[in-house]
Amino acid sequence: MKYYGGIEAGGTKMICAVMNEDGVLAERFECPTTTPEETMPKLIHFFNSYTIESLGIGCFGPIDVHKSSSTYGHILQTPKKAWRNFDFLGSFQKAFSVETVFTTDVNAAAYGEMISGTATNNRNFLYITIGTGIGVGVIINREIYHGFTHPEAGHLLIRKHADDHFSGSCPNHHDCLEGLASGPAIEARFKKKAFDLYEDDPFWTIEAYYLAQAVYNYALTVSPECVIFGGGVSKQRQLLPLIQKELEQLNMGYIALPDHKSFLRH
Amino acid sequence: MKYYGGIEAGGTKMICAVMNEDGVLAERFECPTTTPEETMPKLIHFFNSYTIESLGIGCFGPIDVHKSSSTYGHILQTPKKAWRNFDFLGSFQKAFSVETVFTTDVNAAAYGEMISGTATNNRNFLYITIGTGIGVGVIINREIYHGFTHPEAGHLLIRKHADDHFSGSCPNHHDCLEGLASGPAIEARFKKKAFDLYEDDPFWTIEAYYLAQAVYNYALTVSPECVIFGGGVSKQRQLLPLIQKELEQLNMGYIALPDHKSFLRH
Repeated sequence: MKYYGGIEAGGTKMICAVMNEDGVLAERFECPTTTPEETMPKLIHFFNSYTIESLGIGCFGPIDVHKSSSTYGHILQTPKKAWRNFDFLGSFQKAFSVETVFTTDVNAAAYGEMISGTATNNRNFLYITIGTGIGVGVIINREIYHGFTHPEAGHLLIRKHADDHFSGSCPNHHDCLEGLASGPAIEARFKKKAFDLYEDDPFWTIEAYYLAQAVYNYALTVSPECVIFGGGVSKQRQLLPLIQKELEQLNMGYIALPDHKSFLRH
Repeated sequence: MKYYGGIEAGGTKMICAVMNEDGVLAERFECPTTTPEETMPKLIHFFNSYTIESLGIGCFGPIDVHKSSSTYGHILQTPKKAWRNFDFLGSFQKAFSVETVFTTDVNAAAYGEMISGTATNNRNFLYITIGTGIGVGVIINREIYHGFTHPEAGHLLIRKHADDHFSGSCPNHHDCLEGLASGPAIEARFKKKAFDLYEDDPFWTIEAYYLAQAVYNYALTVSPECVIFGGGVSKQRQLLPLIQKELEQLNMGYIALPDHKSFLRH
């Protein structure tokens, strides 16, 4: 039996999994993301129980995804200082001589949606996760897209809602999309989790206005067939119809958007 | 000798050209864009003097660029009513049985920059023209990119500058990028052409703020290696350094942008 390894390296926790050649999950391991010294040996120990054929890594960013670069596989200017400039991929390559793929956590999620999720029939689409941060994975022509570095579209600069007096929580941009619409941004306004706001709280219209602006600017720039929502905040089922409504108001009939039932997805 | 035809179909004028197999311009023809009834016979008449091998068309948008669509080659919801739903490509296909390529005017310009312009070494980049309108062509993996429809990134939603009291000239979005930063938007503010403003007019800082926001949001979304500026307004040589400065202020060191000398180009 052949085995394949996968890692979702998040800023809060690491999730590792081994899948067998039939595509069945063999084992799963989770641990908090503390420091490389503490965390990395645990991950390597987990994979050591298997002879894996390959290892796919989706990592929190910004990261260096360019194979020709001298810092390929490193984590770059993350606010998580212990991980800054850490050679994440290299640590696994030293431990295992297997084929590796290294991309952003959201690109890995987008790829997963294409292989066996809600976007199996799509060529060009986005995956957006709204949780601790906001991340966007981009699939172009059924391949993970990177470009010069890699998309960081969760930090899009958007317009403030007139009724919103929060100054924003992004350490770099303050009131970018992540600074206004991520989980911590909501929590900073209400001193409680997004999860604990009522479904009909008027804030959801503001949140939808921010996400609709982002989706609209993405649509104008890369014209995706669909945008798939993931992450804690987007578990709010009332959000997607609100975003759809705001989106139509922003568009004013200008561009042809995909049918609303298929455009915004969970 | 073999000949190849090309058309830049603009909202104001049509430019046709025939090139020979050595890549030398054989002949060029220009006429105003009035109505299909009046304009189309002139274009067809021009190409009739040659036995062309193929015809490449870059057309003002929005247009249908998807070969599998029943309205492939048509002009769509343009504000120029006479051309709305007009089968532009089909009119040429009826007249000439040659291979055709049909894309947006800005995609054609972007492609030209890749073949023999300033982006011959680039894989992923944007071409932005700032003139009567603002259009953006997108090259991904050295191919013209369309997506679900095609990019319309000249209409990006951006933040208004605090010192700007103009309400915007876009008939659909009012104060989108095109509505705030295109030639007609500048003219509407000052009752004179952008060309006639002094080089050190404080307005150029506002214009740069708008363009920098757009470039930054493009960079966050598709991470291009460069952005090439074309069109009348970008002939203002003072603009690019101002955009660069605004761009750095917006980024706050967050994403790695290409070296500033190669990132923004004329």
